[in-house]
Amino acid sequence: MIFLDNASTTKVLPEVLDVYNKYSTELYFNPSAPYICANNVKKDILQAEKFILKFLHATSDSKVIFTSCATESNNMAILCNLNKRFKKVLLSVGEHSSIYNLSQEIKNRGFEVDFIKLQENGQVDENDLINKMSSEVGLVAIMSVSNETGAINDIEKLVKLVKSVNFDCYFHCDGVQAMCKIDVNLSKWGVDSFTFSGHKICAPKGVAGLIVKKNILPMIIGGGQQNGLRSGTENVAGIMAMTKAIEILSAKNAFAYVKELNSCARKILGEQKGISINSNQENSPYILSISFAGVNGATIVNMMDADGVCLGTGSACTTKKAGNTTLEAMKVSQENIMGSVRMSFCFSNTIEEVQFACNKLIENYVKSGSPLDKAGA
Amino acid sequence: MIFLDNASTTKVLPEVLDVYNKYSTELYFNPSAPYICANNVKKDILQAEKFILKFLHATSDSKVIFTSCATESNNMAILCNLNKRFKKVLLSVGEHSSIYNLSQEIKNRGFEVDFIKLQENGQVDENDLINKMSSEVGLVAIMSVSNETGAINDIEKLVKLVKSVNFDCYFHCDGVQAMCKIDVNLSKWGVDSFTFSGHKICAPKGVAGLIVKKNILPMIIGGGQQNGLRSGTENVAGIMAMTKAIEILSAKNAFAYVKELNSCARKILGEQKGISINSNQENSPYILSISFAGVNGATIVNMMDADGVCLGTGSACTTKKAGNTTLEAMKVSQENIMGSVRMSFCFSNTIEEVQFACNKLIENYVKSGSPLDKAGA
Repeated sequence: MIFLDNASTTKVLPEVLDVYNKYSTELYFNPSAPYICANNVKKDILQAEKFILKFLHATSDSKVIFTSCATESNNMAILCNLNKRFKKVLLSVGEHSSIYNLSQEIKNRGFEVDFIKLQENGQVDENDLINKMSSEVGLVAIMSVSNETGAINDIEKLVKLVKSVNFDCYFHCDGVQAMCKIDVNLSKWGVDSFTFSGHKICAPKGVAGLIVKKNILPMIIGGGQQNGLRSGTENVAGIMAMTKAIEILSAKNAFAYVKELNSCARKILGEQKGISINSNQENSPYILSISFAGVNGATIVNMMDADGVCLGTGSACTTKKAGNTTLEAMKVSQENIMGSVRMSFCFSNTIEEVQFACNKLIENYVKSGSPLDKAGA
Repeated sequence: MIFLDNASTTKVLPEVLDVYNKYSTELYFNPSAPYICANNVKKDILQAEKFILKFLHATSDSKVIFTSCATESNNMAILCNLNKRFKKVLLSVGEHSSIYNLSQEIKNRGFEVDFIKLQENGQVDENDLINKMSSEVGLVAIMSVSNETGAINDIEKLVKLVKSVNFDCYFHCDGVQAMCKIDVNLSKWGVDSFTFSGHKICAPKGVAGLIVKKNILPMIIGGGQQNGLRSGTENVAGIMAMTKAIEILSAKNAFAYVKELNSCARKILGEQKGISINSNQENSPYILSISFAGVNGATIVNMMDADGVCLGTGSACTTKKAGNTTLEAMKVSQENIMGSVRMSFCFSNTIEEVQFACNKLIENYVKSGSPLDKAGA
């Protein structure tokens, strides 16, 4: 099997699983328990937090709230920061469903929501942000890297822009597809919070983080763990495993290698009639959005599945997909939206895998009775 | 090391960890992804759900919402069921902090909260419930087994009592210390929701469940996973591992064995001057609350720690413990509350471990300059 859907989830690395297993069978203690071995586990979590904050160049007043998934982190960052001091929330239209789909809930709580458009390259439209930003806006959420196209937003610039209009405006950044993939410098960026997730970076599902600077209201209340910010027994094994994954991936620094994989795919697919690449060259190399004109993306994905290649149709994080807001916002044609497929890489993929997959893609596109076929290939 | 704090957390069983590892490295797919191997994982989760519902004798309209921890499950059961059709919420005073500490939040949302007293044996005081129950009460939460004392509430009777006053009243039951430990029959009990947790039953931390009958509002919103009831990529490995643990523990049926461990401890400790057992004979044998008059419980726990025995001081799920509401509600003397220690068992504990621990407890109580010592032991 060739797995090229790494933006949806990843295989856990053996060394990461070793850490998980150690904290499940040897150091399985409840960090809140009153004996030394439990207290040592608590210290391990604090060390993990320190490491993550340093890795992300977080400000000295930052902390990590360990959560169960990016969706929880994003929900917390948005819903627990709504307050009566402001009226309006701005979300980019390209946000992941864990933010985009909060708009109704935000409205239910008495706030206005507006969406910031995307440019055709998939980045947030700065002019639209400038137009919609005002002193009434108290919360803005813009992702670092698009999970659909890999488009990278200039978060530092966007934060400055937002804060120049309303210095007190809270800026949340979903960094799920940025973490361990592009350089993240939270101090420089100036964001108020940042989400990352374990299972996108070769760590287990069920663990994620939210970096915060100021205190935030808790979403889950109880025994007061994590300074009262997120109650519930800490997922110690998950936290330690995720930290190990960050350590390994940051040492690996696979950006250049993944860019080769990405270029290889672009080269093979880019010159074929009916096939278009929706992701810009400047995007994160980890994600490649490809459209097959005249064919349903799901059909292509199914054919590839039969050939042993796993690919995504847009975001796997959405169980029912009605259209694709990101590609729509980028003004991709309806035909190309219907025919879109997402290929996403991991450092563990090989050039041969990518070549095989791309050649199969072309083959299957022809088989499907595509325009490529009609053109007499 | 002798681990007798199994009510705070448990060591993950090897067979359970095997399942976890399999779903982390072989079957690591995102259940929402569009290829067959991912869909198979989704089916595995549905099978797991079926198994759990059957094990708990849930009604046919029930479903399992998989969450990250019992605190999340309890928060969801309470906070997502508050609605304008009623005014008042009743919680037992013995509830775990993940319910007890919600009272302020419930009040913030415009509802009244009242607490149901406990009897001296640690069970909920039925007369107090009758007195406080009215047509204005729309939500009641009473735990099945006390995490402090092991006292077992007659949930079936309490549900009948509540529903006879207000048929529409929602009844939530925290079953964390009941799951795989005492017989649970949700159909017979008639509860509307039921919480259980993985890491209390030899499965990993970071996974838990909430059984519901009717639909409930989601607490975490996003990609629409779990029928929109709990978004976020499912912790597949955790869910499958927890299900394996339920399978193993239910086959083991360790109740009688654990009762022997409990009786052994009662026998050794029960006849000592200054030492009293706060847990009734009829309680769950898995939990034994013991008080050492004139000594701080934390001192005893520390001394035992030095001797290689892990014990709890009340609930480990509370990072900062101001008193002990459960023991207070049972009218245990302040001296005995101060001197309380919790011993909690797992099927994997041996009689020898319990004997060693109890003899050390007596020894350390004497060393600490206890009344036992003063009595000239």
